[in-house]
Amino acid sequence: MFDVIQADLEAFEPALAAAVVSEIPLITDIGVHLVSSGGKRLRPALFLLAAHAGGAFDRARAMPVAVALELIHTASLVHDDVIDEADTRRGAETANAKWGNQAAILSGDYLFARAFKLVAEAGYDASVYVALAQLVCTLSEGEILQDHTTYQVPTEDVYYERIRKKTADFLETCCALGAAIGGMNPVDTAGLAAYGNAIGMAFQITDDLLDYRQTSEDIGKPAGHDLAQGFVTLPAIRALAVLEDAARTELAALIANPKKTQEETARALAIVRGTDGLDYAQAQADAYLARAQEALPAVLAPEIRETCLMAADFIGRREF
Amino acid sequence: MFDVIQADLEAFEPALAAAVVSEIPLITDIGVHLVSSGGKRLRPALFLLAAHAGGAFDRARAMPVAVALELIHTASLVHDDVIDEADTRRGAETANAKWGNQAAILSGDYLFARAFKLVAEAGYDASVYVALAQLVCTLSEGEILQDHTTYQVPTEDVYYERIRKKTADFLETCCALGAAIGGMNPVDTAGLAAYGNAIGMAFQITDDLLDYRQTSEDIGKPAGHDLAQGFVTLPAIRALAVLEDAARTELAALIANPKKTQEETARALAIVRGTDGLDYAQAQADAYLARAQEALPAVLAPEIRETCLMAADFIGRREF
Repeated sequence: MFDVIQADLEAFEPALAAAVVSEIPLITDIGVHLVSSGGKRLRPALFLLAAHAGGAFDRARAMPVAVALELIHTASLVHDDVIDEADTRRGAETANAKWGNQAAILSGDYLFARAFKLVAEAGYDASVYVALAQLVCTLSEGEILQDHTTYQVPTEDVYYERIRKKTADFLETCCALGAAIGGMNPVDTAGLAAYGNAIGMAFQITDDLLDYRQTSEDIGKPAGHDLAQGFVTLPAIRALAVLEDAARTELAALIANPKKTQEETARALAIVRGTDGLDYAQAQADAYLARAQEALPAVLAPEIRETCLMAADFIGRREF
Repeated sequence: MFDVIQADLEAFEPALAAAVVSEIPLITDIGVHLVSSGGKRLRPALFLLAAHAGGAFDRARAMPVAVALELIHTASLVHDDVIDEADTRRGAETANAKWGNQAAILSGDYLFARAFKLVAEAGYDASVYVALAQLVCTLSEGEILQDHTTYQVPTEDVYYERIRKKTADFLETCCALGAAIGGMNPVDTAGLAAYGNAIGMAFQITDDLLDYRQTSEDIGKPAGHDLAQGFVTLPAIRALAVLEDAARTELAALIANPKKTQEETARALAIVRGTDGLDYAQAQADAYLARAQEALPAVLAPEIRETCLMAADFIGRREF
């Protein structure tokens, strides 16, 4: 689908695998396990696409940042899995399940540091280091915000702020760094960054929606994982805003209960599904995708623009 | 005691406090708690001292790196405390005890990233970023090595490798970065770096010795914390090398038992104390301090050299 960056993504995999090698075999084992469990590589792909858009693409120059972005994403997921006590991710055992929390926390730290070392060794403008460091600050802030308010109902604005920090700022940074490293002017770089932010918002809203759309049969385990874990996302926020008194009280009580049974989670899902919560969230995601499309700089070459639009479409329609 | 850097250390505290402020109040609270619990500030002090030694000291230029070094140290301790399930450190509640593991893991990530952002914003040679990123890689490797081999007896060489990664490389980096930023030539910078590495080795051996020297009365809780947690350090390694068969078998069994009673820990301590293990470890620390002294470049101004020697002496004699 993404012909423009196909050759780059093929060169990316061995570069990523090489980046997780440590003189400590255990760290290498964990790193290889983590980066080979089949992520979507969305962040490096966006970065590489934006780098092509700049007009002065140099694969060797771009690759360390592409790898660093995926390492930062991976490190963040490893720490999330420790925090959520998750056993599996993308069908594979998590690092904490396989090697314990100690090794998972420390290998996450190692991967963050490897990302910074990789870009520092390659030598870029200081703005690249600032952007990557700010990204990790923002990711940590977003996760703390989310984890500290489980079983509480955020306002819609607080929800957007949270997913901005957790996801949209990351995709924005991928696009902004790519455009800048690819030689794009600041105005067009800002446009591509806005595109990245908007598809990031849509991506996370869609991700949160999936938790309501998937049935237990789809995923082979109880549905409503976010609700069960206390993560209150847009469909439920909307449902609480539109429900009448009795149903609203029932849903609020179910959400606030940290020890929900599977039946209670299923009941909460059913109440939300009975409102326009899912359609509302989908409409917000679609609005962000429309904004992403509008934000694309006019200067883009046709095949780049086409790929950016396909990426947005892919994010909007995904059911995985 | 350290007149040369007294004014710098006074300027350091508000700079450190400013660095932990986040737009998320919880992160700021955790950061302030962590950096105000009275660390020794050994790492920034060594860095500042080395920066003075270079001859071209500029406090404003040096300060972001001084703060970054303490932030990295703090972040590493926060993650260690999560891993060790520690409730207190330096007499204050740990972040994990006060705010939970989630917030502690994420605020550690935040502090690592803040350190990198701070130095990136200040703008240094890429070698500074490489050194800081390598430092975090090495720290994580050292901790994983240690945590993955609890209740096992390392060889003396493996023990040295572990404390090099955990402590000596850090103090070496402080000295090397200070000297380089202070304008010292590469040969003398290498000398000061070797000084830092050697006092780091002495520092960690002394720290490990304290666990054997302190009695339960000294510290108001059961002595032998390292042994109880499965960290086998130089006094025990030496004891196992010199003990006769029956006592050696008993000590080995006590060390390997992850569910030691307090009485069994006390028995293991007593066996080690009955050998030359403590004297041996002290002799190794003293040898590293002698090496530190020899490594000091001849070019140092008298008051800098004097302070370096005092710092080494301080580390060798500490009982805290």
